[in-house]
Amino acid sequence: MEIEPIAFIENDYTEKFGIPRQSGLVELPSRIVFVDKYSDENALRGLEDFTHIWLIWEFSEANAGFSPTVRPPRLGGNVRKGVFATRSPFRPNPLGLSVVKLERIERGVIMVSDADLMNGTPIYDIKPYLPYVDSIPDASNGWALAEHSGVLQVEFPEKLLWLISEENRRGLIKLLSQDPRPQYQNDPERIYTFTFGKREVSFRVDGELLTVVDVK
Amino acid sequence: MEIEPIAFIENDYTEKFGIPRQSGLVELPSRIVFVDKYSDENALRGLEDFTHIWLIWEFSEANAGFSPTVRPPRLGGNVRKGVFATRSPFRPNPLGLSVVKLERIERGVIMVSDADLMNGTPIYDIKPYLPYVDSIPDASNGWALAEHSGVLQVEFPEKLLWLISEENRRGLIKLLSQDPRPQYQNDPERIYTFTFGKREVSFRVDGELLTVVDVK
Repeated sequence: MEIEPIAFIENDYTEKFGIPRQSGLVELPSRIVFVDKYSDENALRGLEDFTHIWLIWEFSEANAGFSPTVRPPRLGGNVRKGVFATRSPFRPNPLGLSVVKLERIERGVIMVSDADLMNGTPIYDIKPYLPYVDSIPDASNGWALAEHSGVLQVEFPEKLLWLISEENRRGLIKLLSQDPRPQYQNDPERIYTFTFGKREVSFRVDGELLTVVDVK
Repeated sequence: MEIEPIAFIENDYTEKFGIPRQSGLVELPSRIVFVDKYSDENALRGLEDFTHIWLIWEFSEANAGFSPTVRPPRLGGNVRKGVFATRSPFRPNPLGLSVVKLERIERGVIMVSDADLMNGTPIYDIKPYLPYVDSIPDASNGWALAEHSGVLQVEFPEKLLWLISEENRRGLIKLLSQDPRPQYQNDPERIYTFTFGKREVSFRVDGELLTVVDVK
């Protein structure tokens, strides 16, 4: 089946490194901008009645290809799991699935938060989140909660923090607190740098403390 | 982007008419059978640790094409909503999304229940359901709960019921209780018939009472 992008996402995630592993974990704002062909405000009529929406999107940067098994980073990178038991990009069809918070709709552009999609990611479908069928609070997380355990204390010097636009500050701190390092690295001296919007953010992690050392 | 089916679903939903409007509402068993190319049990390793999985599938029978607005049947068929505010098949890319209950995995075949997919539906992706990100119990249902209100009392004469295989009985009754009629019809004399597995099930609805009148 041939599918085509209906929209693209615009935000400050310009590099794969900084992207949270799942949506719903940070609050950075994104905009969903439709391609001309599907830029019809009628197609969004009634969407504002929902608080959350599903996005089906493409792992466009991953360039991954199919691998039957993968090593989930949060399991330490040494345990192999079947790709269909993970949200990894190494799938036969590189489709991603994320629920995001719908903030508002302005002239056919959907403003969302909590998205884990990199800037420029193509979107193939948008659906309302329906809690009466989609929310299963007592479903099992399998081993995935191991992926969600580590919360770091973040030290972000104020003079560096105000180089980040105000609307992004809280989200960036939350993102950092979830430890964006590859899990199997543990070198307190090592400095990690990633691109965040127009800035380069550098940090170091010692035990449970993440310290931002530079913003350029 | 070109995507290809990784698996097909097999169950007793042989006709569109009988399909529940959303997954999670009935308990009919289905089997997910992989195509040769992706029939690799390694790709499912660890999936059994999850209780629920996502399916991304194709509205293959709908043959719908894109329509910016649609008339949700449960709103009476007279109110237009944007297609992205619904789960309707009339989308630019005819992708369906359903969470289903994982029962067990046997020799590379996934047994699920609660699926709303018609027999033979192509599946493009399978992902674990992760409640820590996917479950948002306090999200708004918008007007969608109007779609979920009517529960009918089902009268299913025993001699007809035992023509249905035992594993399917409870699911079929639940399906009938959700009123599979087009919502804007209300004729107590009219007999509705749909194909269920190898059987044809006929029923009538008078007020809140659905009576099965024949199973062939």
